[in-house]
Amino acid sequence: MNKTGKPAAGLSAEPARAADDRRARRQSAESKLQELKTRLREITDLDAVGSVLNWDHATYMPKAGAAARARQGAMLSRFRHERSVDPALGKLLDELLPCAEGLPYDSDEASLIRIARRDFEKAIKIPADYVARASALGSASYDAWTRARPANDFAAMRPYLEKAIDLSREYADYFAPYAHVADPLIDKAEEGMTAAMMGELFARLKGQLTPIVRAIADQPVPCDYCLRGFFGEAAQLAFSLSVVKRLGYDMERGRLDKTLHPFCSKFSLGDIRITTRVNEMQFGSALFAAMHEAGHALYEQGVAPALEGTPLGRGTSWGVHESQSRLWENVVGRSRPFWEHFYPVLRDEFPDRLKGTDCETFYRAINKVQRSLIRTDADEVTYNLHIVLRFNLELELLEGRLRVKDLPDAWRARMKADLGIAPADDRDGCLQDVHWYGVSTVGGGFQSYTIGNILSAQLYGAATKAYPEIPGEITNGEFGTLHGWLRTHLYQHGRKFGPGELVSRAAGAPMSIEPYIRYLHAKYGELYCLPPIAEIDHSYVNAPLHS
Amino acid sequence: MNKTGKPAAGLSAEPARAADDRRARRQSAESKLQELKTRLREITDLDAVGSVLNWDHATYMPKAGAAARARQGAMLSRFRHERSVDPALGKLLDELLPCAEGLPYDSDEASLIRIARRDFEKAIKIPADYVARASALGSASYDAWTRARPANDFAAMRPYLEKAIDLSREYADYFAPYAHVADPLIDKAEEGMTAAMMGELFARLKGQLTPIVRAIADQPVPCDYCLRGFFGEAAQLAFSLSVVKRLGYDMERGRLDKTLHPFCSKFSLGDIRITTRVNEMQFGSALFAAMHEAGHALYEQGVAPALEGTPLGRGTSWGVHESQSRLWENVVGRSRPFWEHFYPVLRDEFPDRLKGTDCETFYRAINKVQRSLIRTDADEVTYNLHIVLRFNLELELLEGRLRVKDLPDAWRARMKADLGIAPADDRDGCLQDVHWYGVSTVGGGFQSYTIGNILSAQLYGAATKAYPEIPGEITNGEFGTLHGWLRTHLYQHGRKFGPGELVSRAAGAPMSIEPYIRYLHAKYGELYCLPPIAEIDHSYVNAPLHS
Repeated sequence: MNKTGKPAAGLSAEPARAADDRRARRQSAESKLQELKTRLREITDLDAVGSVLNWDHATYMPKAGAAARARQGAMLSRFRHERSVDPALGKLLDELLPCAEGLPYDSDEASLIRIARRDFEKAIKIPADYVARASALGSASYDAWTRARPANDFAAMRPYLEKAIDLSREYADYFAPYAHVADPLIDKAEEGMTAAMMGELFARLKGQLTPIVRAIADQPVPCDYCLRGFFGEAAQLAFSLSVVKRLGYDMERGRLDKTLHPFCSKFSLGDIRITTRVNEMQFGSALFAAMHEAGHALYEQGVAPALEGTPLGRGTSWGVHESQSRLWENVVGRSRPFWEHFYPVLRDEFPDRLKGTDCETFYRAINKVQRSLIRTDADEVTYNLHIVLRFNLELELLEGRLRVKDLPDAWRARMKADLGIAPADDRDGCLQDVHWYGVSTVGGGFQSYTIGNILSAQLYGAATKAYPEIPGEITNGEFGTLHGWLRTHLYQHGRKFGPGELVSRAAGAPMSIEPYIRYLHAKYGELYCLPPIAEIDHSYVNAPLHS
Repeated sequence: MNKTGKPAAGLSAEPARAADDRRARRQSAESKLQELKTRLREITDLDAVGSVLNWDHATYMPKAGAAARARQGAMLSRFRHERSVDPALGKLLDELLPCAEGLPYDSDEASLIRIARRDFEKAIKIPADYVARASALGSASYDAWTRARPANDFAAMRPYLEKAIDLSREYADYFAPYAHVADPLIDKAEEGMTAAMMGELFARLKGQLTPIVRAIADQPVPCDYCLRGFFGEAAQLAFSLSVVKRLGYDMERGRLDKTLHPFCSKFSLGDIRITTRVNEMQFGSALFAAMHEAGHALYEQGVAPALEGTPLGRGTSWGVHESQSRLWENVVGRSRPFWEHFYPVLRDEFPDRLKGTDCETFYRAINKVQRSLIRTDADEVTYNLHIVLRFNLELELLEGRLRVKDLPDAWRARMKADLGIAPADDRDGCLQDVHWYGVSTVGGGFQSYTIGNILSAQLYGAATKAYPEIPGEITNGEFGTLHGWLRTHLYQHGRKFGPGELVSRAAGAPMSIEPYIRYLHAKYGELYCLPPIAEIDHSYVNAPLHS
């Protein structure tokens, strides 16, 4: 319009109509985006409701509620699947594609359309009957495992595991062609990662770790007597809670409960809960499990509120998630600066047990390295050897090179070769982890733990490079700078960027094992008087630890 | 077939074809019944999932989870409504009608088809947009009330209550024609009951109660000092738990938690939970609330397993439900035989507080009658006057005879007239109950409490008539005979029979206030040395207690 308020004379009707068209297109795109968000929020909410059922199952549900609970959970999964493959959702995403292309790549809207589209394209490859079969196998297998593991009865689990491997191959085939049958399974947890990439990473890591483990094994085992004895449940839980609050875990939006197997669960940005386990005859497991889960929770609590209720509103991958649990549990929680602040507080809590123990003795006790049979009990140094073993066995099972019936023997042989010890029975061997029994697919899960360990050191290194005052702050029990860096560079982005892209943006380089190996060398080299990094004899690589 | 194993010669193909037809029809009916059960189980499961969300909200949810939780609950309600009005469900029920007619009236199948049909016919009268508007008002009004009640701010609640009354009338109109606008609302809670029937019952009851309250008011107030002082939370909860287990509450299928407002919640036949509140400075509220909720839970735990996952698999009406909570809380839990057994146990739990108190003093303390402002604090005798007051106000609001803005004054005037006392503010007056603020409809709720009181005495009377040994067993802390009678005559039937029919079957007569008045006279006549029932001066009926 000109100054007179009337349409300028001499202008044809065309430009006005074009403006109207543009406005109409924009309005239509906005209403489509709104519809997309409504649809995606329903899917997110169905996930959240399922999580409430699972949390309750693990914390407070009476035993007799299990059958109905499984049925109710399966119903929610079915509703969720129906909604995530709804052709109307696909049509909406198609229509919104040009709109996304006109927006900045990392804007909330462009990211939402991009990620939702990728999720949709993956979801429609899976038939509904597969989802139902997989869900039924997962429940049945989990129930059987809770009985078979205490009974040391691998034979009982064999048919379930065989079926899970069949279902894993079937899952992979929906994403054919692939270079390796495990690739689609790995991609579920770590988008863009492949068996070949993981295999190379793990071989290099194992090559670096084995000589360290070997060198430590030659040293005297440190005494961790101070961690044993009676540490009351209420006091352990109260101390754990005070620590995780100090890390930055927001209790207005969270809570800590006791479970058999610790976990973190998200129902919304305002309700992200953690659990821990308590052993009254030992200090440590309750606190470190709580810090581990708090790491997951800090990640989820830090996602930008604008992403809430969308598929972007959660952590980007299992591996990156695990990097946060391990960073807070190990890199921070088992560090000397951390205990310089917290040990006096802890000793005041348990004066009878700790009065004769100084901070250094305590610090060495919580960092004791000892080859052990159980993954979840393993220390920082040997932990990854447990993972590499499982990852390789999974690939062989999926490829058909290893048969399920031969798994127990293969497990024992591999433990002997990699860690120098072997379990007396399957309970402490190939039956120990729920990962092969409580799910419908095998493969693609374990590697995330090691990716997490690797990234924990790399990301902590990037944070301290940016803010060299971080270790000093930790000595004062302050975590705000570290937490702030992680929130800015990782947490707030949710699933906007895939794991590879996110790590490169945050750390300034792709994932690398070097910072992690350097971290282990620095910490354990000092604790165990190991020779400097260059002097370690690498001839042990891939050689058995014990003959 | 004959002995030779061949079809008998001379039979035409016709009868064989007729048999085939019959078989085909039976198979078709069976598969239809199966489909019906699948559909109804999904609706039941959606209710159960919603209940888990509500239970968690009331027990352990962090405050900041409320907004997402409300959205998730609304989503489940929407799914539930869509399924309960699905035309395919109606078609299935039509097709199954002839099949139901061929089965015994009280068989599981005939009952299922009958009740599901009635539920469907009611559900389709309500438009989906009404359900959404009602749900939104309920949430908003509840949130506002949690702020307005402490602030004594009735003005803030006025628009919500006005809207709730509009929605109540709208609801009623979906069921027009009706004799009274409250009838469809009352029928929701108590099938077959009307405002006229309740009005007559309440007038008679008030006529009987007022002189008793008046007579008791002339007596000295008994001392309940023994109930005051410090009774630790953990000990109160442990004692409450031990009592409800003794009553027969199955902890394999239940649990007891602490909440602000006690309730009972059912997620499946295997998971029926109760909550209680604890006041550490007073003994009583935790235990009696736990027994009250355990009464609801015993009812639900006693429903026949064959009805699980169907609309028959729960108690038949609010009033009958309340009869069970009141029976176990009051008729049993505030009786002399009960405390003959439990008082010595309780005194051992709290020796410091109770060492100087004998059982009789304690018994009189827990049965103290005193006119009070708050319904939930009221004793057995005055309680129903609170209900009659609310019921009458509801009718007047719905009829339009009373305007919402005049409610606070009307409340005060009515309290003064009926109970002789009036609240200083609305917080303890017309703002006190969630019933008018946490829901989308007003009316049809409160009467169930009084129906429950009336039935509690009538049903306990029927049980002791059949088994006169029941009071003696209670003296020994045994409840098996009473529980067994209730299970057989009430609990197992679930919703198979409507409340009127169920009571007539169980008690051998329709609901009557006589057993209840007789129960109150016997108990409180003895406690307060009242004149025998015939001698009570009934001239006080409907007259104000205080001039």
